Amino acid sequence: MANTDSLRVRVFSLNCWGIRYVSKHTPQRYDMIGELLSKEEYDIVLLQEVWSEKDYLSLKKKLAFCHPHSHHFKSGVIGSGLAIFSKHRIHDTFLYRYSLNGYPYMVQHGDWFGGKAVGMAVLKLGGLTANVYVTHLHAEYSRDKDSYLPHRVVQAWELQQFVRHTSAAADVVILGGDLNMHPQDLGSRLLMSYTGLRDSYLESAEFDGCEDGMTLIADNPFIGKGSMGPLEKGIRIDYILFKGSSEKDVHCDFMSTTKGSAPDHPFPYSDHEALTAALRVETRQRPSKNQGSAGGKTAELVDIVTEARTEVKVGLHCAERMRYTAARTGAMGLALLFLELAIAAVPWLALGAAQPFPRTSFYLLAALCVAILFTTALLYVFYSAELKSLQGAEDQMRLAVGSLQEELRGFPVAQPHGAQRGALGPEE
Amino acid sequence: MANTDSLRVRVFSLNCWGIRYVSKHTPQRYDMIGELLSKEEYDIVLLQEVWSEKDYLSLKKKLAFCHPHSHHFKSGVIGSGLAIFSKHRIHDTFLYRYSLNGYPYMVQHGDWFGGKAVGMAVLKLGGLTANVYVTHLHAEYSRDKDSYLPHRVVQAWELQQFVRHTSAAADVVILGGDLNMHPQDLGSRLLMSYTGLRDSYLESAEFDGCEDGMTLIADNPFIGKGSMGPLEKGIRIDYILFKGSSEKDVHCDFMSTTKGSAPDHPFPYSDHEALTAALRVETRQRPSKNQGSAGGKTAELVDIVTEARTEVKVGLHCAERMRYTAARTGAMGLALLFLELAIAAVPWLALGAAQPFPRTSFYLLAALCVAILFTTALLYVFYSAELKSLQGAEDQMRLAVGSLQEELRGFPVAQPHGAQRGALGPEE
Repeated sequence: MANTDSLRVRVFSLNCWGIRYVSKHTPQRYDMIGELLSKEEYDIVLLQEVWSEKDYLSLKKKLAFCHPHSHHFKSGVIGSGLAIFSKHRIHDTFLYRYSLNGYPYMVQHGDWFGGKAVGMAVLKLGGLTANVYVTHLHAEYSRDKDSYLPHRVVQAWELQQFVRHTSAAADVVILGGDLNMHPQDLGSRLLMSYTGLRDSYLESAEFDGCEDGMTLIADNPFIGKGSMGPLEKGIRIDYILFKGSSEKDVHCDFMSTTKGSAPDHPFPYSDHEALTAALRVETRQRPSKNQGSAGGKTAELVDIVTEARTEVKVGLHCAERMRYTAARTGAMGLALLFLELAIAAVPWLALGAAQPFPRTSFYLLAALCVAILFTTALLYVFYSAELKSLQGAEDQMRLAVGSLQEELRGFPVAQPHGAQRGALGPEE
Repeated sequence: MANTDSLRVRVFSLNCWGIRYVSKHTPQRYDMIGELLSKEEYDIVLLQEVWSEKDYLSLKKKLAFCHPHSHHFKSGVIGSGLAIFSKHRIHDTFLYRYSLNGYPYMVQHGDWFGGKAVGMAVLKLGGLTANVYVTHLHAEYSRDKDSYLPHRVVQAWELQQFVRHTSAAADVVILGGDLNMHPQDLGSRLLMSYTGLRDSYLESAEFDGCEDGMTLIADNPFIGKGSMGPLEKGIRIDYILFKGSSEKDVHCDFMSTTKGSAPDHPFPYSDHEALTAALRVETRQRPSKNQGSAGGKTAELVDIVTEARTEVKVGLHCAERMRYTAARTGAMGLALLFLELAIAAVPWLALGAAQPFPRTSFYLLAALCVAILFTTALLYVFYSAELKSLQGAEDQMRLAVGSLQEELRGFPVAQPHGAQRGALGPEE
């Protein structure tokens, strides 16, 4: 494999929907997934929502013969749910936890507890260094009124930063996962433009799968009927992305998705469709040009980052309002407590007068006030941290726009600086 | 500067101890720091414990003429306290938040609220790309009984990962900050061996400053008398570290620290001493050898990572015990609540019997039980997240040791893989 002119890499990605006792038919579906992976023997398997360590370990055992190398990325309270299985030795791993990930009190959405992150594994494919990333961004629960949008934009921002800054030494970069973003969403554009990653669905010479490459389809029996909207057949939110380097070029020969069912089984592998991509790595005939049309790309990037900044500012405004509300509610709780104590104190001070405050009500009201104070204090701290993260991202974006604009002004004299080498420059 | 054969870079690092209303003489000290920086015009200024945004902004204003580029890294509830001021344009920034950072209930230590992190800035120095890192690790409150050691070891692990994986495209790497580790501590060895970073105090051709390069000294008037122990004059826990690349070599010509006082001022700049290093970047006459004695370095690294794994396992054991204690205390709170309800229910069921439970005690006891339940639930969640992070670091270390051992076995046939290029290989 390493000695031929081109290197072939088969990549698999699936959101396993592995919430024990909540997701449907979890054990049977893991069996099916294990069976599929044993049969297909992909080079690299990227899984999301493998929440349970036990499920990961049983997969690991089952796949030991074909995927002797694996890693389960741990973070948050429950875990990141991210796992990688590989035919090739994993030399190094690294995990980046996103700074924002929803709200702990949105228990029904549960994202906060998952500790969303992006995991990286450094593999050797033949003689080449491959940086493989697996990630899962915050879910979108409502397209029209998506209150998590600023969080997801910041996650996309941090994802592109992580990929861009850690992949300079890699010959091949592969990213797979559930981005929870449509192809034209701000976060997708931010990720693809800044890193230079290419979408295997769009780049593939051949495709077999759901219409428009959709990965969350209305026909999947695990998807609630009607949850997609009456007209929508599905959405494309899972991706396998890739790029080469100045010396290596990567092509996608074939890409496929499952189609809402698994052959010879009563139900599909998951509520998401599985993705596979057959990539081919080749040595570039001539090293990639460093300048080319990069000016146009930089200008586009300035627009996208500016759009992202606006979205983050909306998030900042919301977080500030929420923190203010928490502070005001807390202050009212405190005032109520003082008022109650004052009312109770008056007859006590006017010695001997009858206590007008029924004892039960007194204690209940006091407990309520203390509960309000405690909760609002926690919320205040939480929103303060959210504000810090949003402000941090906004600062970084402002700085990046400044640097990109300078690059644009100085174009083509200024070289793209090191960390962006191969990212801003065109791939061919 | 860029056109001469060698490039000179002057770096400054200081833990500013900038806790408003708590640290002594904060406004005066910031004035002094601003004055010093305006006068000295260092290329790169790395500050820690700049907790207040206002103090950062006032410094920014004061230094605008000599350091037009700056960034304040934001994270956690209060912030990361990390700031960078630069003569040269900052092209890009990135922040990595450590997964572990003490305990929120250790309010008197406060580290948890600070959101400890490592900040990175990509600068252009002449035509070279410099990756500059600033960080502040968890404080050590007791050397003999350091309950935060596993947290600090995991922070050092994550710091070396971050530097190693993000610096592949850099010609020059500079790291400054308060590591809260002595030079021979496990975390220091882990950081230096894995990244190949060199200590400017040890490497400097000339040194002027405190004995043994100490940066926290007993003679500093802000240090509590006796807090250093009776025999100790001070410790060295602040550093400026650097390395070059396969093409660039970095030398330290001069290094200095302040000596517990500031000229013409009644008190020093901070409770820590300030560090300055004069670095010189030169093009290597011959590209750095890739193999050399790297075998010995790899073997040493295996030992260090194994030692770190042991320390993390101790942390895991402690966190498991703490989580168990939280669960048991919670269960006892619940049992007490049920018992109380049962005692209260008996006479209520035996209609008409007198209520034997005084109402006040009943409510107080119930409130106590609920408070116990709530607190232990929060602690359980917190310890679960701590366990996940420790397990994650342990997994990564195990995997790294495996990969290093394979490299050692295959030595010198196997090439060091991309991400470690220039890290494991010797500098000269």
